[in-house]
Amino acid sequence: MKVSLNKRILDRNDECAQKNKLFFEQNSVLCVNVISSPGSGKTTMLSRTILALKDKLKIGVIEGDIKTDTDAEKIRSTGAAAVQIETQGACHLSAVQVHDALTQIEAMDKDVIFIENVGNLVCPSAFDLGENKRVVLLSVPEGDDKPIKYPGTFAGADVILINKMDLILYIPFDLDRVLNDIRKVNPDAKVFKISAITGDGMQQWYDWLCDMTA
Amino acid sequence: MKVSLNKRILDRNDECAQKNKLFFEQNSVLCVNVISSPGSGKTTMLSRTILALKDKLKIGVIEGDIKTDTDAEKIRSTGAAAVQIETQGACHLSAVQVHDALTQIEAMDKDVIFIENVGNLVCPSAFDLGENKRVVLLSVPEGDDKPIKYPGTFAGADVILINKMDLILYIPFDLDRVLNDIRKVNPDAKVFKISAITGDGMQQWYDWLCDMTA
Repeated sequence: MKVSLNKRILDRNDECAQKNKLFFEQNSVLCVNVISSPGSGKTTMLSRTILALKDKLKIGVIEGDIKTDTDAEKIRSTGAAAVQIETQGACHLSAVQVHDALTQIEAMDKDVIFIENVGNLVCPSAFDLGENKRVVLLSVPEGDDKPIKYPGTFAGADVILINKMDLILYIPFDLDRVLNDIRKVNPDAKVFKISAITGDGMQQWYDWLCDMTA
Repeated sequence: MKVSLNKRILDRNDECAQKNKLFFEQNSVLCVNVISSPGSGKTTMLSRTILALKDKLKIGVIEGDIKTDTDAEKIRSTGAAAVQIETQGACHLSAVQVHDALTQIEAMDKDVIFIENVGNLVCPSAFDLGENKRVVLLSVPEGDDKPIKYPGTFAGADVILINKMDLILYIPFDLDRVLNDIRKVNPDAKVFKISAITGDGMQQWYDWLCDMTA
């Protein structure tokens, strides 16, 4: 029973995800679904990206949080458009929620729509939002065992950003192990080492993003 | 439909949680459910706690992870008994999984059973496992906005451990704001500032634990 209903929820989600995907194709919008644990630095990474690329790309952000609109406020302070979805307890965004936000954010006029998913390294990875690309952040303080402990999430990524590299001096973190473990679950993902707070390593991520929209 | 089935899943869980609760009462076992984001330091905190209290308390640990038994291995290296539950994708432990583990871990002979839940600041808080006390960890690198962004999880805690205090020198983190926000969602929780890796501040947590088992 549980399985069949979960399947029904997923089927309904996937149906709407297909509509979103079509919308992005028809309007030449690159949609990027950003997933990580709470506090890995998604909002900081997006804010810096918007500031760096605002003369090249029109960017909008759909923010998912259980409560508060603080992340959307942070994004708006960069000058970009942002819509906040408060999930009221739900642990991930759904394709329907994203669909409803597309009009509000005037997505058809954008080059890139980022979806910052609810901070959660498990559930968001099971829900297709119709995005073109999926980015997973892992921050150094979370530890070097995360790719093997959350393999499904890392396996589904097109890009993996290893964030908070500036903290690697202060924390036991075996970078070689992480890179190795990522390759076991996901041989094809691009992996960029960054510090969203200092800006180190961000250029390679900007280049990738510009390539995808070219 | 979604609501009624979720309610049925929760009801079935709660029924088994009541059985677990009765077991803990009848056997004078303190059961503590430990919840946090991935990488907040649950396993490090538990390992240090076991080593510090092993002459005073018989401790067992039930480990929940999506994949791998590395956390159970770490706990066993302290000399304590540990059972690993691999949830195979599920984002939280259930009361039934805990129930099945109690025999394996010979819980009736223990003073304290810790349940280290799946790393996830959302879903585990919705599932009663029959525990006597609930502990939520927040680590400094996750940022000072987490209590207001995940209010339900913090509201349900008996103890909140602010971990990785040793990193506060290197990271923007407004401790007063966090303490204030915690009080808004949870006026009664004990709040201890700790570093599980250096041991700073752990004594107050040990004292609380010993009080609860006295």
